[in-house]
Amino acid sequence: MKRYETFADQIAELIRGGVLAPGERVPSVRQASRQYGISHSTVFQAYYLLEDRGLIVARSRSGYYVREQARRVLDEPRMTPSRQESADVSVSELVFSVLDSLQDPDTVPFGSAFPSPELFPLARLARSMAKGLGAMTGGEVLRDMTAGDADLRRQIVLRYTLKGMPLPPEELVITSGAMEALNLGLQCVTEPGDLVAIESPAFYASLQILERLKLRAVEIPVHPREGVDLDVLADSLARLPIKACWFMSHLQNPLGASLDDDRKRALYALIKRHRVPLIEDDAYAELHFGTTPPKPVKQFDDEGLVIHCGSFSKSLAPGYRVGWVAAGRFAEAISRLKLMTTISPSVPAQAAIADYLQHGGYDRHLRRLRHALETQQGRMLTAAAQHFPAETRATRPAGGYFLWFELPERVDSLRLFHLAREHGISLAPGPIFSATQGFRHCLRLSYGHPWTPRSEAAMATLGELIDAF
Amino acid sequence: MKRYETFADQIAELIRGGVLAPGERVPSVRQASRQYGISHSTVFQAYYLLEDRGLIVARSRSGYYVREQARRVLDEPRMTPSRQESADVSVSELVFSVLDSLQDPDTVPFGSAFPSPELFPLARLARSMAKGLGAMTGGEVLRDMTAGDADLRRQIVLRYTLKGMPLPPEELVITSGAMEALNLGLQCVTEPGDLVAIESPAFYASLQILERLKLRAVEIPVHPREGVDLDVLADSLARLPIKACWFMSHLQNPLGASLDDDRKRALYALIKRHRVPLIEDDAYAELHFGTTPPKPVKQFDDEGLVIHCGSFSKSLAPGYRVGWVAAGRFAEAISRLKLMTTISPSVPAQAAIADYLQHGGYDRHLRRLRHALETQQGRMLTAAAQHFPAETRATRPAGGYFLWFELPERVDSLRLFHLAREHGISLAPGPIFSATQGFRHCLRLSYGHPWTPRSEAAMATLGELIDAF
Repeated sequence: MKRYETFADQIAELIRGGVLAPGERVPSVRQASRQYGISHSTVFQAYYLLEDRGLIVARSRSGYYVREQARRVLDEPRMTPSRQESADVSVSELVFSVLDSLQDPDTVPFGSAFPSPELFPLARLARSMAKGLGAMTGGEVLRDMTAGDADLRRQIVLRYTLKGMPLPPEELVITSGAMEALNLGLQCVTEPGDLVAIESPAFYASLQILERLKLRAVEIPVHPREGVDLDVLADSLARLPIKACWFMSHLQNPLGASLDDDRKRALYALIKRHRVPLIEDDAYAELHFGTTPPKPVKQFDDEGLVIHCGSFSKSLAPGYRVGWVAAGRFAEAISRLKLMTTISPSVPAQAAIADYLQHGGYDRHLRRLRHALETQQGRMLTAAAQHFPAETRATRPAGGYFLWFELPERVDSLRLFHLAREHGISLAPGPIFSATQGFRHCLRLSYGHPWTPRSEAAMATLGELIDAF
Repeated sequence: MKRYETFADQIAELIRGGVLAPGERVPSVRQASRQYGISHSTVFQAYYLLEDRGLIVARSRSGYYVREQARRVLDEPRMTPSRQESADVSVSELVFSVLDSLQDPDTVPFGSAFPSPELFPLARLARSMAKGLGAMTGGEVLRDMTAGDADLRRQIVLRYTLKGMPLPPEELVITSGAMEALNLGLQCVTEPGDLVAIESPAFYASLQILERLKLRAVEIPVHPREGVDLDVLADSLARLPIKACWFMSHLQNPLGASLDDDRKRALYALIKRHRVPLIEDDAYAELHFGTTPPKPVKQFDDEGLVIHCGSFSKSLAPGYRVGWVAAGRFAEAISRLKLMTTISPSVPAQAAIADYLQHGGYDRHLRRLRHALETQQGRMLTAAAQHFPAETRATRPAGGYFLWFELPERVDSLRLFHLAREHGISLAPGPIFSATQGFRHCLRLSYGHPWTPRSEAAMATLGELIDAF
């Protein structure tokens, strides 16, 4: 983290907290330099960054001001209680029609599940691939197919350790992306017909996987900032024969909510008391804004009950399909399931990531990526405040690349989805995030792509389409 | 196919058919040159090849003779009828202990499921990977994740077409190896508890997958040369509510049996009459000896009932984990299952194989690979004839890299497996190929690794261990 970035974060915090009001002048370069003990050029760099993030605006000859558009900060969405005790899931058809809408490269990709590949060091990774493959003997190719790339395993274990979570290497299973890890984890601890506690709204793929495995969903509401409602969860665990929990404790998809450490500890205590395994989907672990990396619920796992699933797909190497699971007591069972399902993730892809982690500058790349995403979030929020109806509520997550919008009740996001598609804009309508197809007036938009005039125009168009309801 | 290879195959055929008896002199170089209209050096090249394959031997100053060891050609194994109507499967534990035994790189790998990686053009593939990745935009990375690499799709469709089986591109789904293709195919057409017709003996992974999906096996005996017994199959299909067949029509694992085209046609007619989908595992398609590539049952599929699964893992790129399925009427369902399971095979691995297929010389590599395997088969058969008891029966498949041995009834192949392991030799004992753990006195040995004095010594050791029963 560079000095100017730290300073920019401090000013951003003042703006978000209302200490610096919209229209107000931010400290002059001279003031800031003296007050914070930094050079003029550092202040300038920080202000350029805040301008990029849509938080301040330069007025010629008079300095920088908090943007007017930041005046109307959108309210936080409300928490929606679940409508029924448990439910069969049948959302797949709807999800697939949304995924289909993303295939057209000319579409404005607000519905995309991935950040723009332009944000990733693909050329550097290709060099790592060549190097990793060149260093590999034929025998290693076969060995890595069952055990996983030895260097990659070491690097992943090292990253856990550096976060203060030493990981016994035998707990680690390398998988074909987090998606396979989640699938195998769930298969490992459930039988068809079992109840699984999931979030509401939830990542649609978890709904599809429950549907495929013929599991029943117990939907636990998620507070848009604080994460899954632990009181409701405690009640459900006490009353229902829930066989597994599947939660995202950090940057939950689609809300972006994160449990703080106290809530994570409480969540772990709950699952431990009821002896219910937790499948912790931590695909966005590295996409936190600010400097302090949060730790997952896994940090408290003293009984091997947490199946912690991670991935490089959202932070480094989209399309390489390399993820992992720190699987606690289920490691051997999951490893065997994997041998029967796909045998192994691609060996060259593993070698490329292993080399990159050692020599590529992963942490430097992550800092750049986080800043790009934070800037893009500011742009989208600003545009939403300007173009969407006044009653619109929106999240403001501390990371990731999704915003969740709660629109006026009269808006039907499924119809909006089809209308937007006709205008060349993709989006993710609320009902695909719910086993019971709720959240009809909600939508998820991705700011994972660099912000362009086209993005701005698409937000204006969406605003008009919403107004027409 | 070079001229000398064709000529060598003709001579080999004469030896196998008994026209040239053990100890008999093969045509002199001059005779052969005149009779077949080829140059002296072509005849020499062919004889060197046949020497390599263990079929002939040079005697100084007097020419080439059919090897004495070829005298005792091992008899063909017998066909074993199934012992019960249908069975729950529980073979996984046993299979995993066999797979574990392969982890030690110092073990003689007769139990290995893969040919030696030294037989594959891994360095050339790495260059293709660099080229393929370099040519790829970020947008393509995301697009290829759902649809698969466009060039790779074209190349696979082209290979079907060149074999006289035009394939509608929309039938093709790229998968993480054949293993994922087989898994998804089976999941697509069955529910837990359903009956599935499989071969006996069968590829152990098919047994594991049935076990995992809680399917019941109807074991259809396989003739060691002619393939699955169609009379038994017809009877089973008529009497039992079988929901799917899972067969290898070509180079069946472990027997190496292949159905001829008439039998393939008859098999297709059967499944069509009963409207039962066929999952056709064709992982060894390219490993046929001789010049004529056989066509799968899929060639007769006029109703989209055949789910034809292929892979590059055994013929080109072990560890890349790229396979495919020509899925007939089930293509969309399988494609969706894949999106929910692993999303996509590794995009760089797809790009590498796509580039290699266009520019790498795949067919040249395949010819070399087939000749290496055929030579290694000759060596192992010769060694078996020399070291194993006289009552031993063995297959002599027209491709692949497995031999199946039927030992005297007193031999317990599970005990042999453990004894051999203590001597640093891996092997695949018969019971892992059967839902009901039959084939107790049988074993599968791989000749997929280059033959060395150590291989020869290992065969002698196995012979001693077998004699001790």
